[in-house]
Amino acid sequence: MKVMVIGATGTVGKAVVAALETRHQVLRVGHSSGTEQVDITSAQSVRALFERVGQVDAIVVTSGELHFGPLVETTPEQFRKGIDSKLMGQVNVALIGQHYLRRGGSITLTSGIVADEPIAQGFNATTVNAAVEGFARGVAVDAWGAFRINVVSPTMLTESQDVFGAFFPGFIPQDGATVAQAYVRSVEGPQTGRVYKVF
Amino acid sequence: MKVMVIGATGTVGKAVVAALETRHQVLRVGHSSGTEQVDITSAQSVRALFERVGQVDAIVVTSGELHFGPLVETTPEQFRKGIDSKLMGQVNVALIGQHYLRRGGSITLTSGIVADEPIAQGFNATTVNAAVEGFARGVAVDAWGAFRINVVSPTMLTESQDVFGAFFPGFIPQDGATVAQAYVRSVEGPQTGRVYKVF
Repeated sequence: MKVMVIGATGTVGKAVVAALETRHQVLRVGHSSGTEQVDITSAQSVRALFERVGQVDAIVVTSGELHFGPLVETTPEQFRKGIDSKLMGQVNVALIGQHYLRRGGSITLTSGIVADEPIAQGFNATTVNAAVEGFARGVAVDAWGAFRINVVSPTMLTESQDVFGAFFPGFIPQDGATVAQAYVRSVEGPQTGRVYKVF
Repeated sequence: MKVMVIGATGTVGKAVVAALETRHQVLRVGHSSGTEQVDITSAQSVRALFERVGQVDAIVVTSGELHFGPLVETTPEQFRKGIDSKLMGQVNVALIGQHYLRRGGSITLTSGIVADEPIAQGFNATTVNAAVEGFARGVAVDAWGAFRINVVSPTMLTESQDVFGAFFPGFIPQDGATVAQAYVRSVEGPQTGRVYKVF
């Protein structure tokens, strides 16, 4: 299969590429690195990416930024950061990418444990991750027979524990290689409308 | 209590006002009707509303638009309609309104059954409603001790069955008066971070 991985040079993306590239042709897409570049917050940039690349068999997104900060200080404008990036970025890829996806192909998006388990100052992440899961749940019914769409919801990665550990007290981290297997299940498995929770 | 109801002249809002006004001072806010007007998609308009009204004991939002349409025809730009209106509109009210809310007061937002039960061409609604529920779940932990925040998720209202019935085959409608009681539970009850599902 020809698999496009957007966010290929991030912590999750690198693990996903490693898990997929032994059996598939993986196209690495990054914001400023990788074989192709894209700004997923821009529908125009996403359209240009797919125009350059053409048809693919599977699309994986492991990219998107969020806002973290104290509730009383957070403005609507700050909150939009996660909406525009991790939510609308992935929506942009899915709505545009569906037209470049082989019939029977798949789209795999990324949410995160904070959808289910709020952390302090993480309400933007809970909102956005829940939205991404809702998007896949809703799209899956309309995409029936055309393409599959799933979400992987990872916990904190072992590889990120030094940076993010303080924000996830008592959360059990998982290795990137373990998280990557959920993406493999989504890309190669038969299911749609699923959230694969790796926690 | 002084309760602000935004969307007071809509189908759900009218029922909520009727259920609350016997015991509370209800401020009716609408887009172009009501005692006060606001465009919830505009943070500036929401800020101006609260500057005019001052402190309240409870905020209820029963307002927000969504996009419905075929998946293959939906563009990111169309999808943004629901993001900007029903999601960011309610986020605007909550993030700005928290500063005008009496300590111990409450915010009650509105999602909908399509968060859990996708309908054809309803993926924007599933996304947005799931996001609103995630927002309340995340905010509730940071707002602990300051204010409560809940969501009401109604099914189709009996009053809307003539208009929307064809989109909800097999869904059992509920009367506005029944749905309104979930808002009463949120405003007058002790819980936070809850989704009151009326279906």
